[in-house]
Amino acid sequence: MGKRIDLNADAGESFGRWKLGQDERLFPLLTSVNLATGFHAGDPLTIRDAVRLAKSHGVAVGAHPGFPDLVGFGRRDMAVTPDQAYADVLYQIGALSAFLRLAGLPLHHVKPHGALYLRMLKDKPLAKAVAQAIKDYDPEVPLVLLSGTLMEEAAQEVGVRYVREAFPDRAYLSDGRLAPRSMAGALIRDPKAAAERAVAMVLEQEIDALDGGKVQIEAETLCIHGDNPEAVEIARAVREALTEAGVELKTY
Amino acid sequence: MGKRIDLNADAGESFGRWKLGQDERLFPLLTSVNLATGFHAGDPLTIRDAVRLAKSHGVAVGAHPGFPDLVGFGRRDMAVTPDQAYADVLYQIGALSAFLRLAGLPLHHVKPHGALYLRMLKDKPLAKAVAQAIKDYDPEVPLVLLSGTLMEEAAQEVGVRYVREAFPDRAYLSDGRLAPRSMAGALIRDPKAAAERAVAMVLEQEIDALDGGKVQIEAETLCIHGDNPEAVEIARAVREALTEAGVELKTY
Amino acid sequence: MGKRIDLNADAGESFGRWKLGQDERLFPLLTSVNLATGFHAGDPLTIRDAVRLAKSHGVAVGAHPGFPDLVGFGRRDMAVTPDQAYADVLYQIGALSAFLRLAGLPLHHVKPHGALYLRMLKDKPLAKAVAQAIKDYDPEVPLVLLSGTLMEEAAQEVGVRYVREAFPDRAYLSDGRLAPRSMAGALIRDPKAAAERAVAMVLEQEIDALDGGKVQIEAETLCIHGDNPEAVEIARAVREALTEAGVELKTY
Amino acid sequence: MGKRIDLNADAGESFGRWKLGQDERLFPLLTSVNLATGFHAGDPLTIRDAVRLAKSHGVAVGAHPGFPDLVGFGRRDMAVTPDQAYADVLYQIGALSAFLRLAGLPLHHVKPHGALYLRMLKDKPLAKAVAQAIKDYDPEVPLVLLSGTLMEEAAQEVGVRYVREAFPDRAYLSDGRLAPRSMAGALIRDPKAAAERAVAMVLEQEIDALDGGKVQIEAETLCIHGDNPEAVEIARAVREALTEAGVELKTY
Repeated sequence: MGKRIDLNADAGESFGRWKLGQDERLFPLLTSVNLATGFHAGDPLTIRDAVRLAKSHGVAVGAHPGFPDLVGFGRRDMAVTPDQAYADVLYQIGALSAFLRLAGLPLHHVKPHGALYLRMLKDKPLAKAVAQAIKDYDPEVPLVLLSGTLMEEAAQEVGVRYVREAFPDRAYLSDGRLAPRSMAGALIRDPKAAAERAVAMVLEQEIDALDGGKVQIEAETLCIHGDNPEAVEIARAVREALTEAGVELKTY
Repeated sequence: MGKRIDLNADAGESFGRWKLGQDERLFPLLTSVNLATGFHAGDPLTIRDAVRLAKSHGVAVGAHPGFPDLVGFGRRDMAVTPDQAYADVLYQIGALSAFLRLAGLPLHHVKPHGALYLRMLKDKPLAKAVAQAIKDYDPEVPLVLLSGTLMEEAAQEVGVRYVREAFPDRAYLSDGRLAPRSMAGALIRDPKAAAERAVAMVLEQEIDALDGGKVQIEAETLCIHGDNPEAVEIARAVREALTEAGVELKTY
Repeated sequence: MGKRIDLNADAGESFGRWKLGQDERLFPLLTSVNLATGFHAGDPLTIRDAVRLAKSHGVAVGAHPGFPDLVGFGRRDMAVTPDQAYADVLYQIGALSAFLRLAGLPLHHVKPHGALYLRMLKDKPLAKAVAQAIKDYDPEVPLVLLSGTLMEEAAQEVGVRYVREAFPDRAYLSDGRLAPRSMAGALIRDPKAAAERAVAMVLEQEIDALDGGKVQIEAETLCIHGDNPEAVEIARAVREALTEAGVELKTY
Repeated sequence: MGKRIDLNADAGESFGRWKLGQDERLFPLLTSVNLATGFHAGDPLTIRDAVRLAKSHGVAVGAHPGFPDLVGFGRRDMAVTPDQAYADVLYQIGALSAFLRLAGLPLHHVKPHGALYLRMLKDKPLAKAVAQAIKDYDPEVPLVLLSGTLMEEAAQEVGVRYVREAFPDRAYLSDGRLAPRSMAGALIRDPKAAAERAVAMVLEQEIDALDGGKVQIEAETLCIHGDNPEAVEIARAVREALTEAGVELKTY
């Protein structure tokens, strides 16, 4: 029986007059997308258009809620309380879900954005609050998270469904963490290299660590960073390499 | 067979640190509330708390979407396009609905706020776009509107369900319009006077016009303006007078 | 004695993560720029960078205040009161002026943005309030306006200094108004055509109207729309044609 | 020669429709105020009105810049970079200064608000960036800070002018820090107790610490927390007690 994997990217990250990302070129290459929900990016018309585009390409749509920080694009850590995070995430999930309902699509998953995601790696009460919001909204909807982290522990304690993601365009350290962006070699910009890593992640569940040795990877979805210039080329290379290796590209 | 009427007020109009309104005192007197949904007032925690409060009092909850104008409290007309209004209203309905879903409450109605409501009295393409958003979201959910207006025409053309509201604390002109706030006598602050008008609205479907003569009123719901200081006294007086007159206070 | 003219464009229109415009390529071709001041575009870091860039190219810097509408990019009319417009413009002028002060640059002019500019063409109380804010802040600083309009009348009544602008990349009607963008031929995208019009505006003070006949143009500054793709080519062609025609490019 | 002290409070903390604080009652009791500048509270009309009110009472006006977080009222820590903090503070100082200029008032001081103030107690690069923004804007304008902290070190390293504040309505620990709000006794709500502490702060430069022993206090200004219900009574009691003790209430 063959292996299969989901391929996701953040999308719908425009805001009003300001356009960002390459949704039209990326969506045909993906199996799921994480749509910004208005707090860090993604106004209502942008959401509507991104949902339509996803539907036209048969791509599954998840919510990508973030901190309420437009000017910082949700990338600045904020001392949001667990209560606030719970309510903020619920609000954003609901807002996106209205557009999905009209498109006849289910809410496929929830993947926290930027600094909210990073806070969930180190702040368990907040991570549990976000997980609880998703579970309370719909126990069938999984949280997308980073395996082997406090975020996964929080998800297990709350009992929310979850899926694990890995990053073929980012280097890992041997302890399983992502290499900080400031380290040389942390970002993988060569499509071929990213594609090889993607195949290794799925077939061998193991890749070379940036600091030597091997690191184990267990993931149901691979994330392509949609906001870098090579995103489309990386997504295409990853997709082709996985297909050639006999891996089915299909969402969870 | 007895008459019945719904009694509604705008609520959930705080924002973060800033508190507004008297929700705790008003909710026990009402049968439905219109909750601000984040664009002109009402952050996620405020929404959560207002939904809880409404549930504890058995009050039906509707959405009160507005223009994206926090500093203007949604009271300044904005040249929002029909497409933008459609998407903005859908976004806000969805956001509130997530909180209702967790509370086990249905979305009872949608009542546009402030300048958005007023635009729907004179801009039919926009009025139809808002009506369509509600109908597309859930054909069972009624739009609350002002009878005898272009807003009602738009609702009929779109085929959205709707209910009509009247204002016992506002004077009317003989042509059916609300008297402008700038006219002497436009605002009725005496609870007893408001209560008498409420009873006349329900039992006789007719009240005295500010400019002489009578004006016909057809309404399924009476609105108490929640942000004026006498709101609680007016709501109480209206409630008592209606009950004494044999009118059942019950939502549509 | 030779003719001279100022060449301006809107700039600094990025917002946080979202980039807009081609400031680096446009500034060397201009003599003044209008910098967004945070209400419709232009966060503090964007302002800082745009001021630095302007200084390095010896370009004069004016404020480009707009309506408080980020998602609408200040292009949607809003029923802002004269009092609010006065205070909003003053706030934005002050914010930009702090960055100019540190750069050792004067506030060169104020040019209202988008829907605020358009409101000043038809709402005299608001136009006067904006003019008054500029005059109160600094009586030496001119308002940039469209000649032959209610905006010019308001400026004269208030007694604010002003300069008149014309648009070589936009067609005019014979009554002096800009041709609406929806009319065929309203936007001039051919750099050569724009350049010829610029020369005619300065040397003959007259151009062909879109609806036949001629239209008189009196202007101290020509505006290049910085957000269209051909902006750099148009600015370069206009600059070269003016220079060849013996017109000095210099600010007022 | 007599002692003298400044008495300050945060003010101008309304936002649009939402009113907060008791500026009309507090200003007559103070010698300086810190006005919110739009990022966490204080829209342009609120600023205009607060400046007018301060002028009418002869109260000195300082800027109270905060993090860009309206819904959190600037009280949530944010991972703003030093560069962002520099630009954000400069923007806000400039915006307020425009209103002061029209009122013929100088910018008297700058006191960071809420979470920005607290970050300056523990993040020296950010504290220095804020101090530098003030110094670059006007080397005569002092930063209001908490004595004996990293914030004071940062001010000294940058060479910005500064004044030290103390809080008669807050308890201190023996190491000089404010007692956390969660500790019993941390908030002093009794006007008489606050007044006695104010006198001790000025005349003895020493008060009882909450955890035993004494704590030294050196301050040129005493801060009354304007957003608690007892603020007016505390300010009045402090003012009267200081005057009776022969201390002159006068700003630095």
